[in-house]
Amino acid sequence: MSDVLIDRDGPFTTITMDRPRRRNALSRAFLLELTAAFEEVAATDALGVVLAANGPVFSAGHDFGDMAGAGHADVRELLRTCTRLLETIQSAPQVVVARVHALATAAGCQLVASCDLAVAAESAGFAVPGGKGGWFCHTPMVAVARNVGRKRAVEMALTGDVVDARTAADWGLINYAVPDGELGKATRDLLERATRGSARSKALGKQALYAQLDRPERDAYTYAIEVMAASSQTPEAQEGMTAFLEKRHPDWPA
Amino acid sequence: MSDVLIDRDGPFTTITMDRPRRRNALSRAFLLELTAAFEEVAATDALGVVLAANGPVFSAGHDFGDMAGAGHADVRELLRTCTRLLETIQSAPQVVVARVHALATAAGCQLVASCDLAVAAESAGFAVPGGKGGWFCHTPMVAVARNVGRKRAVEMALTGDVVDARTAADWGLINYAVPDGELGKATRDLLERATRGSARSKALGKQALYAQLDRPERDAYTYAIEVMAASSQTPEAQEGMTAFLEKRHPDWPA
Amino acid sequence: MSDVLIDRDGPFTTITMDRPRRRNALSRAFLLELTAAFEEVAATDALGVVLAANGPVFSAGHDFGDMAGAGHADVRELLRTCTRLLETIQSAPQVVVARVHALATAAGCQLVASCDLAVAAESAGFAVPGGKGGWFCHTPMVAVARNVGRKRAVEMALTGDVVDARTAADWGLINYAVPDGELGKATRDLLERATRGSARSKALGKQALYAQLDRPERDAYTYAIEVMAASSQTPEAQEGMTAFLEKRHPDWPA
Repeated sequence: MSDVLIDRDGPFTTITMDRPRRRNALSRAFLLELTAAFEEVAATDALGVVLAANGPVFSAGHDFGDMAGAGHADVRELLRTCTRLLETIQSAPQVVVARVHALATAAGCQLVASCDLAVAAESAGFAVPGGKGGWFCHTPMVAVARNVGRKRAVEMALTGDVVDARTAADWGLINYAVPDGELGKATRDLLERATRGSARSKALGKQALYAQLDRPERDAYTYAIEVMAASSQTPEAQEGMTAFLEKRHPDWPA
Repeated sequence: MSDVLIDRDGPFTTITMDRPRRRNALSRAFLLELTAAFEEVAATDALGVVLAANGPVFSAGHDFGDMAGAGHADVRELLRTCTRLLETIQSAPQVVVARVHALATAAGCQLVASCDLAVAAESAGFAVPGGKGGWFCHTPMVAVARNVGRKRAVEMALTGDVVDARTAADWGLINYAVPDGELGKATRDLLERATRGSARSKALGKQALYAQLDRPERDAYTYAIEVMAASSQTPEAQEGMTAFLEKRHPDWPA
Repeated sequence: MSDVLIDRDGPFTTITMDRPRRRNALSRAFLLELTAAFEEVAATDALGVVLAANGPVFSAGHDFGDMAGAGHADVRELLRTCTRLLETIQSAPQVVVARVHALATAAGCQLVASCDLAVAAESAGFAVPGGKGGWFCHTPMVAVARNVGRKRAVEMALTGDVVDARTAADWGLINYAVPDGELGKATRDLLERATRGSARSKALGKQALYAQLDRPERDAYTYAIEVMAASSQTPEAQEGMTAFLEKRHPDWPA
């Protein structure tokens, strides 16, 4: 009995967190299961992945049941396990969209912030609540602060309050906030738009984008120029250009 | 006779710039007084600090009376003195909120940008005017450009024009723009929301957040994981988790 | 017969891309011509530059006619040539504003993102379409991702879809989106606002701003303090302060 459901539907796979009674809390076992699910899907020809959740909460973050009383080394290992899940998502060849139907807090909010794209229902919310407790959300803020501006990141971190989905979209934490009844369709529409073209080119593109984002601009150019020049020699780049010049639809090499 | 007023009211302390005839210009003496005030409050058990100002201007920035004719080394020392004030604010254990009732320009704008949070009256404004004069606002732009997007930072720097409070909130330079009559209440509400939970955890959290913000993502995770694992062993983290699991209100250790 | 028009009008020079039948595609020759135009204007006393374009498209980016079949080293050299144009724009002593009347895609979008400021007609649009083709827009994303938030950058890169001008202004990719009929006037108004004050101070200010933007905050302060202290000794800084203290209009040294 797994707490992670994997459903393939045409070009897209949905990975669903199905641990509703624990509010999809990210226990060590659950983090490993999720990482394995993304690794499993990464090896398929799926073009896109939806990360979804069952139950009244998208994810409540780490499981205090795991954490209370754990020693320094055990907590460090748990946080590294969590970071490996996020790295697996960001290095997956697929486009990964979070479909957020409800509250995402702490590492659950970090999980959304770490997906390539995110769509939320208007009734969903986002919070990093450690700041109003006894244990600050240090690691969640790494991901959150790289999506929203500084003053907003500090506000989320210090107040711990829930930011509603419309505000989260306005701040850039997610891409879209949509009426609850349209969440499935809006997520699928965005995923369809984001998965056109050569899958191989996009898988490289996604990773190179994350690799250059944090570098000083000049270093980023040095890196991006090399990647772009190298990828110009791929069959997909040549097919794309040739099809464009011949005014025909491209036929992407497998 | 000090130009800086310090008022304690319950858990909060207000530090007021009271040099209205000089438009709260940041002379060397005034910078040292402000730094001393933040250091004094840092040693108390206050949870939050409001940085406010008296007079028709929040702060006009550096005092040209100090600057005109000063040599390279003297100007460098003055700018370092200013930067030490900003570092003192960012490393204070308290949450620091700027309450901006009027115009904040040049280093005055930098001061607002360097507080943890900022609330402004709708009639307030923000400018870095050196770009339309003879001496570019190099140091103020360090703080301003870390709060707003690049195109907006360049626009503020090159035009020197005043950005109204609503636009400043939209751009992320401040957290909220509110009707003038609600400034005091809105600032206090935000401060109350931002000072819940363990003060010791929050003091660490605030500093660790600033420390990770400018690092490449992977370095930021390495750092944040270590801080989060270490802080899991504190009495406040354990009390927070235990109280949560026992469904009772936490009792933060002093 | 050049494809680049240079028109001086008072303090401002307009550089117009005039290769409408090739949709102002950035061939190697055209990139060199544009770079030479910016270098030529840089040596004049013009205060500001408008980068404009003729024809139904602002710029379609690189010219696939140049690229299809080109080897790794040739593509690298072409991309370096493009980057040198962008560096020439950012290091020009003038304020450079893009006046975008129509679609700007791929390296054309990168070109807009690399100007100091940008104003677009409401009917204009912005896209980095490589992600929906076979060759990802690696280098354009370096510039685009430094202007918009992360989730929006990823969306533009993965979907390749056109972002309309109003959304581009909301995201910070450009400064203003204005009704089509007001594009010329709005661009000129912004340029006038951005070119007041000492041109020499502004030229230094612009470059120092780009130099500090990508640095960690503490390094940025170390650098900015040194630049600001050094520039305090210039005749224009002294004239600006003295005129302010004497309540008279400054007279900028040539």
